[in-house]
Amino acid sequence: MRAMTVEPGRPGSFEVREVPDPTPGDGDLLVRGLAAGICGTDAEIVAGEYGEPPPGSDLLVLGHESLGTVLQAPDGSQVRPGDLVAGVVRRPDPEPCAACAHGEFDMCRNGRYTEHGIKELDGFGAERWCVPAGDVVVLDPALEPVGMLVEPASVVAKAWEQIERIGERSWFDPASVLVTGAGPIGLLAALLGVQRGLDVHVLDVVDRGAKPDAVAALGATYHHDGLERAAEKVRPDIVIEATGVSDLAFGAMASTAAFGIVCLTGVYAAGRRISVEAGSGYREMVLENDVLFGSVNANHRHYRAAADALAAADPTWLGRLITRRVPLDDAVRALRREDGDIKVVVDLI
Amino acid sequence: MRAMTVEPGRPGSFEVREVPDPTPGDGDLLVRGLAAGICGTDAEIVAGEYGEPPPGSDLLVLGHESLGTVLQAPDGSQVRPGDLVAGVVRRPDPEPCAACAHGEFDMCRNGRYTEHGIKELDGFGAERWCVPAGDVVVLDPALEPVGMLVEPASVVAKAWEQIERIGERSWFDPASVLVTGAGPIGLLAALLGVQRGLDVHVLDVVDRGAKPDAVAALGATYHHDGLERAAEKVRPDIVIEATGVSDLAFGAMASTAAFGIVCLTGVYAAGRRISVEAGSGYREMVLENDVLFGSVNANHRHYRAAADALAAADPTWLGRLITRRVPLDDAVRALRREDGDIKVVVDLI
Repeated sequence: MRAMTVEPGRPGSFEVREVPDPTPGDGDLLVRGLAAGICGTDAEIVAGEYGEPPPGSDLLVLGHESLGTVLQAPDGSQVRPGDLVAGVVRRPDPEPCAACAHGEFDMCRNGRYTEHGIKELDGFGAERWCVPAGDVVVLDPALEPVGMLVEPASVVAKAWEQIERIGERSWFDPASVLVTGAGPIGLLAALLGVQRGLDVHVLDVVDRGAKPDAVAALGATYHHDGLERAAEKVRPDIVIEATGVSDLAFGAMASTAAFGIVCLTGVYAAGRRISVEAGSGYREMVLENDVLFGSVNANHRHYRAAADALAAADPTWLGRLITRRVPLDDAVRALRREDGDIKVVVDLI
Repeated sequence: MRAMTVEPGRPGSFEVREVPDPTPGDGDLLVRGLAAGICGTDAEIVAGEYGEPPPGSDLLVLGHESLGTVLQAPDGSQVRPGDLVAGVVRRPDPEPCAACAHGEFDMCRNGRYTEHGIKELDGFGAERWCVPAGDVVVLDPALEPVGMLVEPASVVAKAWEQIERIGERSWFDPASVLVTGAGPIGLLAALLGVQRGLDVHVLDVVDRGAKPDAVAALGATYHHDGLERAAEKVRPDIVIEATGVSDLAFGAMASTAAFGIVCLTGVYAAGRRISVEAGSGYREMVLENDVLFGSVNANHRHYRAAADALAAADPTWLGRLITRRVPLDDAVRALRREDGDIKVVVDLI
C-alpha cells in the first residue's frame, strides 16, 4: 500500500512510498484510509524537528488527523465494518502513569505515551491502518467530507472542557470569548464557543483569505486590528490563544475581564527573547484571580465531544475550512503552505 | 478610642489618634479589638500607594488582619458576647455583581467591593470595631495568642482550595509542593500543605532568621539555593509563589512537573521590564497541561477553613510566626521592617 512516510530527524526525507500492508492484531480494526489532514506538527516532523519512528524502524508513517472506513472489526466490537471513524492519536504509556491508568492520557505525567504519526506509532496517512477497536470514534456518516477535522476539533473540545472545569472552581457564567488566530484550531474553537451561546470574537493576525467570511458565517465578530484593540473592545471572559505567537500569549494575560481564563493551545517557538513588563501582568492576574493554562491533545471523551460538535455544525461551514485537497501521490504539495490555506487535506483514495 | 489611621494617598500621614467610638448598626457586632497583624498592603497604604477612605472622610482606620472579642451581638445572632472572632475583610459590592451575589465576593467581577482597612471601610486596627454579625469567623478560644493569623491563613486556604479545584479538572493526586517565600503567607501555605499530607518544600529568598527552624519544625524541607536548583531537586506538582518577585513568578512556570499548577499570591511590582525567553515557557505549559493562576482575598468558606487549619496546628509553631508585638501607641514601629521579622502584630489592649 502507499503511505506518507518520513525519517524523523532527517529533513527532506518525506516521501509517499510503498510499505507493507498492516496486519490487524487481536482486537484491532483494519481501516481503509479516506483522508488525512495536515497541520503544523506534520510540518515540524517533515522539517526534522520532531517525531520518532516505531522501535526498530527508521520510517514513520505520517498523519494523525484521520478519517477512514472500517474494513474489518473484531468479533463483539461495537465498531462495525462500514463505520466512518477517526483514530485517537495518543495511546497511554505502557507503564502506565496514574493519569494514563485513569484514561486521562492527554494529561500523561511521564511523557512515555505514544502517538500515531508523531511518536513511535505509525500514523493514519496511509491506504490502510490498524488500531485497537476502542481507539476510534465513530462518526455520523454525513461527516464523510469533513470528518478529518475531528482530531483538531478534539483538541478544541478538550480546551473548552478544561476552561469550563477551571471556571467552575467558583461562580462562572462567561459571556464572551476572544479567539486569537483564525486557522483551523481558532475557527473550530470559535464554532464550539458559538455552540455554547457565547459572544465570540476572532482576532486574525495573518492573511485574511476566506477567514472573515467564515467568522461572519458563524455569527461571530472578526477582528484584524491587533490584540490590544480587540481586547479593549471585547474585555473577554475567556481567551483561546491559537496562533503560537509568544507575544500574543503574554498579551492575552492582560486582555481579560476579571476572573479571566486564557487557554494556550499553540506550539510556541523556543529561543526568541522578549522584553516584558511582567510585574503588571502578574499583579493583575492576582488581583483579578486570572488563570493562564496550556492544553494539548485529547482523550476519548474529547473525541466524542468533537464528533458531536461537528455533527451539530453546518456541514457547509465545516467544508469552508478545507481550502485544498491533494491526492496522496502529490502529498508533498499539501505540506507547502499556500496563500489562503486554512486546512489542507490529503485524499487517500 | 484610639485607632491606627492614615490619610490614603498622603505618605507620612500614619498616626495613632483618638477617633469617635463606632456605633453598631442593626445586625452589627460591637467588637473589642485585641490585636492587628501588619502586612505589605498596610505598608503600601502608609506609603500613600494604595487605599481609599470611607466616603465623606479623609481618614481610613488601618488594619485588616484582626482579632477581637465580641462585646455586643444582635438578638438571635449565632455569634455571642465573649466569642473570639476575626473579621472578614471584603464586603460584596453594593450592586452586586453576580459573583458577589453568589457569596463568591473574593471573585468580584466589577471591582466595586469594599474592604475593611483598605478600601472605603474602616479597618480593625482600633480599640473597638463593628461589622455585620455574619462577617466574622468565630475562633477556638485557644487561638487567642495567634488568631490574627486567620486573615493571612484565609488567603492561603483560598489558594489551596483553588489549586485543588483546578487540579481536579482531570486526574489529580499531587505529591509535592514548593512554596517560594518564607514570610507569613509562605509559611502558612507550607502548614496547609503539610496538613494535606504533601511533601512540602520552602524556598527562602531573603534573610533566614527563624525561618529554617520554622520550616523544619513543620517536617518540611528548607531551601536557600535559588529556584532552579530547588525545582530541579523537587520537580513539584504545585508551586505557591509568595514572594511577589516577578522573576520567580516567571521561573515557577518552568519548574513544575507535568500537569503542574503554579499559584501566584504576591503583589508584583509594576514597571520593571524583564527579558525572558517566553516561547519555551509557554510551549512547556501547553505540552505539560500546566496552569498558572493568581489568587487574592478570601470568602466566608475560606475564613472557616483557615480557622479550622489554625485550630488543628501546633500553637507553639504558630507562635513562632509572630516575631514582634508592639503596643498600639508605638504602632509606627510595627510598620518599619526589622531583620528577622516574620509577622509583626500591634496589640490593641
